[in-house]
Amino acid sequence: MSSEISLTEYLFRRLRSTGLRAVHGVPGDYNLTLLDHVVPSGLEWIGNCNELNAAYAADGYARIKGIGAIVTTFGVGELSAINAIAGSYAEMAPVVHIVGTPIRALQEKGVKLHHSFCSGLKRDYELFAEIYAKVTVAQAELVHVEDAPGQIDRVIREPVYIQLPMDLVDARVPVSLLERELDLMPVVNDVALQSGVCDIIVQRIMSAKQPSILVDGGTSRYGLSKLTDALVKVTSFPTMTTPFGKGIVDETLPNFHGIYATVGDHDYASYVNGCDLIINIGPVHSNVNTYYFATVPDKTVTISIERDSIQIGERIWKISPASALDQVISKLKSEGVPKIESYPALRNMQQTLATLPTSNDSSEKFAQTNFWRRMSHFLRSGDIILTETGTPSMGGRDFVLPQNTTIINSAVWLSIGFMLPATQGASLAQRHITASESESQHPVAHGRTILFQGDGSFQMTAQELSTIIRNRLDVIIFLINNNGYTIERLIHGPEEHYNDVASWNYLEAPSFFGGEDTSLYPIFKAKVRTWGELDGILDDPKFHSGKGLRMVEVMMDMQDCNDTLRLLLDIYKTKKG
Amino acid sequence: MSSEISLTEYLFRRLRSTGLRAVHGVPGDYNLTLLDHVVPSGLEWIGNCNELNAAYAADGYARIKGIGAIVTTFGVGELSAINAIAGSYAEMAPVVHIVGTPIRALQEKGVKLHHSFCSGLKRDYELFAEIYAKVTVAQAELVHVEDAPGQIDRVIREPVYIQLPMDLVDARVPVSLLERELDLMPVVNDVALQSGVCDIIVQRIMSAKQPSILVDGGTSRYGLSKLTDALVKVTSFPTMTTPFGKGIVDETLPNFHGIYATVGDHDYASYVNGCDLIINIGPVHSNVNTYYFATVPDKTVTISIERDSIQIGERIWKISPASALDQVISKLKSEGVPKIESYPALRNMQQTLATLPTSNDSSEKFAQTNFWRRMSHFLRSGDIILTETGTPSMGGRDFVLPQNTTIINSAVWLSIGFMLPATQGASLAQRHITASESESQHPVAHGRTILFQGDGSFQMTAQELSTIIRNRLDVIIFLINNNGYTIERLIHGPEEHYNDVASWNYLEAPSFFGGEDTSLYPIFKAKVRTWGELDGILDDPKFHSGKGLRMVEVMMDMQDCNDTLRLLLDIYKTKKG
Repeated sequence: MSSEISLTEYLFRRLRSTGLRAVHGVPGDYNLTLLDHVVPSGLEWIGNCNELNAAYAADGYARIKGIGAIVTTFGVGELSAINAIAGSYAEMAPVVHIVGTPIRALQEKGVKLHHSFCSGLKRDYELFAEIYAKVTVAQAELVHVEDAPGQIDRVIREPVYIQLPMDLVDARVPVSLLERELDLMPVVNDVALQSGVCDIIVQRIMSAKQPSILVDGGTSRYGLSKLTDALVKVTSFPTMTTPFGKGIVDETLPNFHGIYATVGDHDYASYVNGCDLIINIGPVHSNVNTYYFATVPDKTVTISIERDSIQIGERIWKISPASALDQVISKLKSEGVPKIESYPALRNMQQTLATLPTSNDSSEKFAQTNFWRRMSHFLRSGDIILTETGTPSMGGRDFVLPQNTTIINSAVWLSIGFMLPATQGASLAQRHITASESESQHPVAHGRTILFQGDGSFQMTAQELSTIIRNRLDVIIFLINNNGYTIERLIHGPEEHYNDVASWNYLEAPSFFGGEDTSLYPIFKAKVRTWGELDGILDDPKFHSGKGLRMVEVMMDMQDCNDTLRLLLDIYKTKKG
Repeated sequence: MSSEISLTEYLFRRLRSTGLRAVHGVPGDYNLTLLDHVVPSGLEWIGNCNELNAAYAADGYARIKGIGAIVTTFGVGELSAINAIAGSYAEMAPVVHIVGTPIRALQEKGVKLHHSFCSGLKRDYELFAEIYAKVTVAQAELVHVEDAPGQIDRVIREPVYIQLPMDLVDARVPVSLLERELDLMPVVNDVALQSGVCDIIVQRIMSAKQPSILVDGGTSRYGLSKLTDALVKVTSFPTMTTPFGKGIVDETLPNFHGIYATVGDHDYASYVNGCDLIINIGPVHSNVNTYYFATVPDKTVTISIERDSIQIGERIWKISPASALDQVISKLKSEGVPKIESYPALRNMQQTLATLPTSNDSSEKFAQTNFWRRMSHFLRSGDIILTETGTPSMGGRDFVLPQNTTIINSAVWLSIGFMLPATQGASLAQRHITASESESQHPVAHGRTILFQGDGSFQMTAQELSTIIRNRLDVIIFLINNNGYTIERLIHGPEEHYNDVASWNYLEAPSFFGGEDTSLYPIFKAKVRTWGELDGILDDPKFHSGKGLRMVEVMMDMQDCNDTLRLLLDIYKTKKG
C-alpha cells in the first residue's frame, strides 16, 4: 500500500470509520473527480434525482446510522440542498455536506465561472460558504492540503459543510494520518464535578414524592437512549415522551404513559404540574413539540439533561451527560429507589392497546382517529416508522409501539416532502446496520421501513421513489390520499383552491419510475377505502413480511384528522404561530 | 369602494400593474391568509408541487412577461426556493419572492416556532433574510404598515425578497396609494450628457472600417431588443450573438451570422480580432457564454451597452442606454451609414438553413449533430423555445430561428431541472400576454411553447408536468433520453455509475400525473429512434398545430452530442473550470 492517499479518499475513509457506508448526492462538473473516490473508499454511491432529495435521504440515513453524507456541486447543487441541511441542523441529524468547488486559483481571481454570479469578484466564491455557516454547526473550506486532514477530523462529528476544490481532490496526504484516533468520544468529565452533580441527582430521585421523567428527541441524538431506558426501569417513575421523543423508551413498560399532552387522553397536566421532580432528557422546546409550550417543565423542579450539560433549577454543570447518567443509574441500582407512595392513575400503553377501536363491519370507512390507533397492531419490533409532517405525524402520536421500534418524525423543521427521501435513506441504513450497532443503539436490523405520508407531501419529492426502486430497497408506503394539504385546510381555507393539489394516479408511480414486479424485487400495490380492504392487505404475508416495494393508497376524507391534531389546532388558533 | 385595502392586496395590485397575472407558490401555515388575496387582486394562483419548482416557474414566467412572483412560507419554503431565486438574480429575471412570516411580536421575542431553528433568539427570524440579501437585488422586511407601501413600490422592479408577517397581511392602507405612479421607467438622461456620448457613438459607427455588433443576453433584460434590431438593420454591420443572446436578433437578416464562436463553423475570430469597432450590447461574460472568455471583445475597440451605462474603451458614461440608442439610431437613419468596404465572408443563417442536413433514409437514427440543425424546420414565428442546460442547450446553439422567436436558455447559473417548471411558467405567460405587450417586446402570443430537455434534468423536477396538465397548458416536450447525464459523461467518467440515472418509463408521465387524453386537453405521446419516426410526428397537424400536451421521447446515444458541445468541451478540458 502506498504511503500516501488522496485527500478525498482520506475524507471518505474518515467518514467510513464513523459508520458511514453510503454517500448520497448528484454529480456535477465540479464534483465528478471527487466522486471517483467514493467506491474505492468502501462506500456506496446513491445518485438521487435532485440535491434537496439527496440531502433529505442523507438525513434519513443519519437518523438510523448516526452519520450521513451528501456530495453536491458548487452553487446550484449546494443551494438546492440547503433546506434539508438546515433541517438536519435544526433536528440534530449529523449530515456531512461535501461540495465540489472550482479550482482554487480561479476562485482567487474571481473568474466568471458558471454556477456563480459572474460578478468578476472573489466574493462569488465566498458567499455560499457564508450562507452555509448560518445553517451548519461547523464548516471547512479546504484550501491547503497540509491543513485539510486536520480540518476534516475536526468537523466530521456534526452537521457540517465542507468545500473541496477540484484541484485538491487528488492532493496527496500521508496514509498514516488515518491511524490517528478520531476523537468522536464525548469529553471525559472531571471526576469530582461529575460526582457532585450525580450526588445531587441521586438525592433528588431518592427523595422525590411526585416525580416524572420526560423524554425528548435530543435523547437519541446525544446517545442517551439506552441510559434513559435504564433510568426509566430502575426508578419506575411515571415516564412520558414529547412527540419528538416518541419511540425512544420501551412502550411496553408499565410506567410508560405515552406522549405528555395538555389536552385529550394524555392530559397529564394535573400530575406533572404537581411534580417535585421532572427529569427532562434531551429537551427540544419547539411550539409543536410542547403543545405550544404548555408541556415545557417548570424549571424549578426540573433536572434537564442537555447535549453537553446538566441543568438543575437555575444551575448549569458543563458536563457530558452520558457518564454522569451511567453513574447515577449504578448508584440507584445499588441503593434501590423507593417506590413512590401512590402511583398516579395515568394510562399506560398496554391499556391503550387493549382498548383500541375494532370493527366487525368490513365495509366501514376508516377515519383518521381510528386509523392510526388501529395501525399499532401492524407494527413490529425492529421497524423504522416514518411519519411525514401533517396528518401522518399527528397520527403517529397515537401509535402504541412494540419494543425496539424507531420513529422518524419532525418536531422543529417540519418541511414536508422530507419523508419519502428520508425513507430511502433510512431503509438503506437499515440494510447497512451492523450487528454491533444494532445491539447498542439501533435494534432495527431485522425490521421493516414503513412510511406514512400524505399526497401533498408525496408530490414534493415523489421522484425519490425511483431511487428506492433502483436500489431495490424494501419499503412499505401508506400514501394517505386526502386530496390536498389537509392540515392547511384545517388551519385556514378548508375549501380554498390553494390547498388543493393535482390529482395523480399514485399507484402508477412504481411503473413510471421504472419498477417491474419481479421475484427479485416484487412490487405490491393496492388502493383501500374500508377496513375490510385494508385488513385483507395487512394480513397478507406478501405484504407484511414480504420484500420489495409495497405501496398502499389509503383514501381519506379531505378534512379528516385525528383528535390529537384537532385538539392541537384548537390551541394553535388561539396562539397564531 | 372602500378607501382602504389590505396591505397584501396593495402588494398584489402593484405587481399586477407591472404586468403580472399569476402568482406561483406553495401554501404553508404562515402564508395561508396572504393567499386569500391573490384571486381578489386579479391574479391567478398556480400551486406548484414544491417551492424550488414554483420559483423556476415564476422565472420562466418572468422571462416572457417581464415580471414573475412566488409566495412561499417562512424557513422551509423560502430555503427550498433559493437556488432558483439565485438563478433569477444571476440571469436577471425579475422574480418577486414573497415570504409569509410569523407574527411580528413572536419574532421579536424569539419564540421557538416550527420552521425556525428554535434557538429562542430573535436571530432565528433574521437569518433567512440575511441569506436572501446575498442572492437578490433588493429586500423588504415589512414591519410597519405605514412604511410598507413605499417599501413595496421601491423594490418590485427587480429580483427581490419581501417578508410579510401574518399580522400585517390584513393591515389597512389607503387605496389612494395605488394611484401614485409606480416609477418603473428608466432614469431620464441629462440631454447634454446623452448627446455627447451619442455623437461619439455615431462618429465611431460612421468611420468604422471593420465593425461588428455582438448581442448578448442583457439586451432583452434591459428592454433593448427592438432598438438592437433597429441598429442591426440601419448599420447593416456584421452581427452575431452570444449563446445567451440567441433569439434576440432577427435571424433572417442577411447581416446576421449566428453565434460568434472561436471554434467550428462560426469561428469568426479572425474577422472580430481585426475589428476597429465592436458594439457589444448587454454583455454577460460567463465562461460558457464566451467560449471560456475567448469571445470577450477587446475593450479598446468596444462600445459596451450595459444596464445603466455605456462604456467606450475605458471611459464609462452613467446613462440609461435606451434613449441614447434611440437617438443614435435616429441620427444614423437621417445621415445614412456608409456600407463597409468589403463585407466579410461570414456564414449567414439563411445559408445555413439552405444547407441543413437531410436524409432520404427514414430508418436513419439521428445523431445530435444533425438533430438540432434539422429541428430548425419545425420552429415557427412566435414560438418560445426552452433548451435545458446540457446537450439541449448546446443543441439549441445550432438552431436557425424564424423571426420573432424567443429562446430561453441558461448561460450563467446552469441549474439543471430549471426548464420543465420554466416551461410551465413560460406557457402560462404566453397565454397571459396581451396584444400590446406582444407588439412591443414579446411577439409570442400566437406561438407555441416548446421544451427540449434531457432525461437527467427531467428527473430533477418532473412533478411539474402535473402543473402543466392541471392548468391545461399547451406544451410540446422533446425529452432527450440518452440514459443519464450525458454532458457529465463527456466531461469526466463516461461509463461511471454516478453519471447514470434510473430508467423511467417517461411516456407514462402524463397518465401518472393525472392527464387524460380528452378533446378539451389532448395528450399526444410518442417515442422515436429514427428520422422516419420523428418526421411522421413532426408532420402531424395534431402535433405541430394541436393543443394540449405533446410529449416525444427522443432516443439518443449515451455519449452523443453535437459538434458545438464537443468543441466547447475541448476548450473546457484545458481550462478546467
